[in-house]
Amino acid sequence: MAKRKSLTQQIVEKLTEEVRDGALRPGDRIPNEFELAESMNVSRSTVREAVKQLVSANIFEIRRGDGTYVCKHVGIAKDPLGFQFISDKKKLALDLCELRLVLEPWIVRKAAEQATDEDIAEMERLQAKVEEYITAGENHAEPDLALHMHWAKCTGNTIVPKLIPILMEAIPLFIEVTKRSLLEPTIETHRAIIEAIRNHDPEAAAAAMERHIILNRESIILTDL
Amino acid sequence: MAKRKSLTQQIVEKLTEEVRDGALRPGDRIPNEFELAESMNVSRSTVREAVKQLVSANIFEIRRGDGTYVCKHVGIAKDPLGFQFISDKKKLALDLCELRLVLEPWIVRKAAEQATDEDIAEMERLQAKVEEYITAGENHAEPDLALHMHWAKCTGNTIVPKLIPILMEAIPLFIEVTKRSLLEPTIETHRAIIEAIRNHDPEAAAAAMERHIILNRESIILTDL
Repeated sequence: MAKRKSLTQQIVEKLTEEVRDGALRPGDRIPNEFELAESMNVSRSTVREAVKQLVSANIFEIRRGDGTYVCKHVGIAKDPLGFQFISDKKKLALDLCELRLVLEPWIVRKAAEQATDEDIAEMERLQAKVEEYITAGENHAEPDLALHMHWAKCTGNTIVPKLIPILMEAIPLFIEVTKRSLLEPTIETHRAIIEAIRNHDPEAAAAAMERHIILNRESIILTDL
Repeated sequence: MAKRKSLTQQIVEKLTEEVRDGALRPGDRIPNEFELAESMNVSRSTVREAVKQLVSANIFEIRRGDGTYVCKHVGIAKDPLGFQFISDKKKLALDLCELRLVLEPWIVRKAAEQATDEDIAEMERLQAKVEEYITAGENHAEPDLALHMHWAKCTGNTIVPKLIPILMEAIPLFIEVTKRSLLEPTIETHRAIIEAIRNHDPEAAAAAMERHIILNRESIILTDL
């Protein structure tokens, strides 16, 4: 039993290393149990146990009826800060806004200083997607998150992009409620941020981001929760 | 089997609720398996499985040879942002410093605006502890973290204190290396921050915090990793 456990541990470590080294990348599909067992020369039950541990470590995720994949946000726990233990969801959302008001203007200020042409093209592509979703009447939370994460990546700081999904966590709570009143300003302020970054104007980028978050905050304040 | 699982789930949810509602508080000792099973009118194996799940959700922790406790930082995952997947530890530490330079001056600015006399007394108590550890030649990481978390609590923002342990994560990597050169400036800049908060002087508090983090950053830059 002790030997079996350590074999599982070896497989866990080997697969974790492959993710760390980039041999397996976020979103990659993992070979099935049978293939993995064969290629790693262990039993299927060892593979099964290893995969289970990697899933609970937020490294792999199982997509039902599809297969096992490397998590998009590798190693980032679900609800990593324990928001489920904050019972006042409105205060939670306002506290998140306050934190975003500290971080995100700094983020786009830095993005305006150092974004490359490719970075800016990517922002425009993501913004087009946000507008496409909005025009189609669909929930734009996903491309919206991708755009904010892309701004964060432009800082060159490896940690900041990891914080963005956490800071924007509460948005799905509000996005339905605030839909009508926020759509136009979302498009307008996003465009203003990208325009400022394109002009390499840090102050204008920060100001547009502040406007963007303050609009969000107002709609949260007006929401009954 | 399905029924058994749902019973476990009920116990998990009941205990989670007790933590959320404050009936069980961080650091509280949990009754043993036998007592829990009796008081909740379920089998010991159900209790055992529920506790196991609560441990993996970072709600309970097992202290070997002692007992089971409510985690100090309830619901906060170990390595919640997946730092183990950042191989360049020096860049990680510098990126953490950069983020602290954005957040912590804002934190003590807000603390200077609204700290109560009790808050200030608590800062002084924690700072005395930091100095006591330093004088005794002990690792002062724990009281240091407690002091930075206390400043974060003074903002009134529920999320900011949860970020501090993450931002200070990399410090134990450096605290040994930088020991001699950093001890005096740590004491001095901490004292300057508390003095500024005592005087309700936000700008002086922010400036002292910037100095504090920049000193940390310099010692990281000089460290071979």
